[in-house]
Amino acid sequence: MSKKRWKITVEYDGTDYCGWQRQAGGLKTVQGEIEAAITKFCGQEIGLHVAGRTDTGVHAKGQIAHFDLDYGDRELSGFELAKAINAHLRPNRISVLGAQQVGEEFHARFNAKNKLYRYRILLRHAAPTFERNQIWHIQKALDVDAMREGAQHVLGHHDFSTFRASQCQAKNPMRSIDSIEVTSHERPNMGGTEINISVEGRSFLHHQVRNIVGTLTLVGEGKWTPQDVKTALEAKDRTKGGPTAPACGLYLIHIDYPQNKPE
Amino acid sequence: MSKKRWKITVEYDGTDYCGWQRQAGGLKTVQGEIEAAITKFCGQEIGLHVAGRTDTGVHAKGQIAHFDLDYGDRELSGFELAKAINAHLRPNRISVLGAQQVGEEFHARFNAKNKLYRYRILLRHAAPTFERNQIWHIQKALDVDAMREGAQHVLGHHDFSTFRASQCQAKNPMRSIDSIEVTSHERPNMGGTEINISVEGRSFLHHQVRNIVGTLTLVGEGKWTPQDVKTALEAKDRTKGGPTAPACGLYLIHIDYPQNKPE
Repeated sequence: MSKKRWKITVEYDGTDYCGWQRQAGGLKTVQGEIEAAITKFCGQEIGLHVAGRTDTGVHAKGQIAHFDLDYGDRELSGFELAKAINAHLRPNRISVLGAQQVGEEFHARFNAKNKLYRYRILLRHAAPTFERNQIWHIQKALDVDAMREGAQHVLGHHDFSTFRASQCQAKNPMRSIDSIEVTSHERPNMGGTEINISVEGRSFLHHQVRNIVGTLTLVGEGKWTPQDVKTALEAKDRTKGGPTAPACGLYLIHIDYPQNKPE
Repeated sequence: MSKKRWKITVEYDGTDYCGWQRQAGGLKTVQGEIEAAITKFCGQEIGLHVAGRTDTGVHAKGQIAHFDLDYGDRELSGFELAKAINAHLRPNRISVLGAQQVGEEFHARFNAKNKLYRYRILLRHAAPTFERNQIWHIQKALDVDAMREGAQHVLGHHDFSTFRASQCQAKNPMRSIDSIEVTSHERPNMGGTEINISVEGRSFLHHQVRNIVGTLTLVGEGKWTPQDVKTALEAKDRTKGGPTAPACGLYLIHIDYPQNKPE
């Protein structure tokens, strides 16, 4: 009866995985790989609870999960635990960046106060070399100021039905976006321009961030006005929204918990 | 008789290539892939001249090469040329970032005034996920201030025999390092620390940058004092230098030509 709860921070390149969630039929998932690694290390079947399930091809730099582990009376530091899991995770593109023991009241999903997602777009003619499958490659110019203006319309508490995947299982389409930032910076050596769209909120509907990004690129291309984003949102109808941006550009960056400063 | 000279700026992830230089026996090289792509586009056999040959596994963000192309009297813009080469380069992790017509006095190698290389080190426990084969992963702490102090000893004009690969074919071991900077920055989300070692000079001996980096990591680990770098340099003996840092951390970033500002 010496089960202890551990919180882990996880980074992964989602390219090779069918999303976070464990699946039947031998599909490779991030959860499945981490659970298998923990089992190899300690011999126990454990179940991971995650803060934010990510889709196929979506990446994470600061995913959070928790699990309970019975390690007897032996001492186990967070460093040792992370190291052991990582050793068994190879050659997966998944790394446990840190592990810490938490109280049994901690729950990775229910306690999550805030999530930060970032979407990366590379504007240039040439295909990405170093970041293949890690950035959305667009070959046209985008008007970042117009995208920024359009983004302001999704700020706050709204019915996000327009930006919700048809297969979304949430009961309620109401969500709050607490901040959305569209930034752009030149990449050196004629490497083009990178646009980042960073979105914060407590929780998101299925494909919500990717559908917002896809819509904002219509604004960036000049096909939509910034005001059209407001009209689409108010329609509460998925068919009035823009396309879904590809998974490869999306990163779950950080999850905030009460009394937990950004790390 | 309408051959025109083109200068191209090339980015590549060197992981899958046996270096820049074309080789017999079907080995995949960056030069070989680009030449084949150009031939597919225009039907001509062309020969690329490069500014800095890179070794197996070494990357480039701003490699420069030139070649002569007879395109008859037809108009061809740099944009069209780059686009055509890139189309034929897929699925290689090589991209032509730009192409410009230059005078026949231009030579990518002989006119190069200055080259900037950058070496990337990731300090953290967990293996890299997004940058596998694109950064040197070190699991110990390194003393960056000591590395910076040690680096100062290789600044200037010296006999670099201590940092020269035994297979180096240069006639003269004298080289000038015009600047060397050791910087470090924290990566967010407990992602560890990234150390960059940036080295500028007109030309380098084989493995010179990687041997300097390998030596500076000995200083960072505390096995050597910064002063030991000076002693090693003055010995003019490869066996007195530190190990060769792995290829995966090295990037050819930029090459400067007369009347050519950093792009």
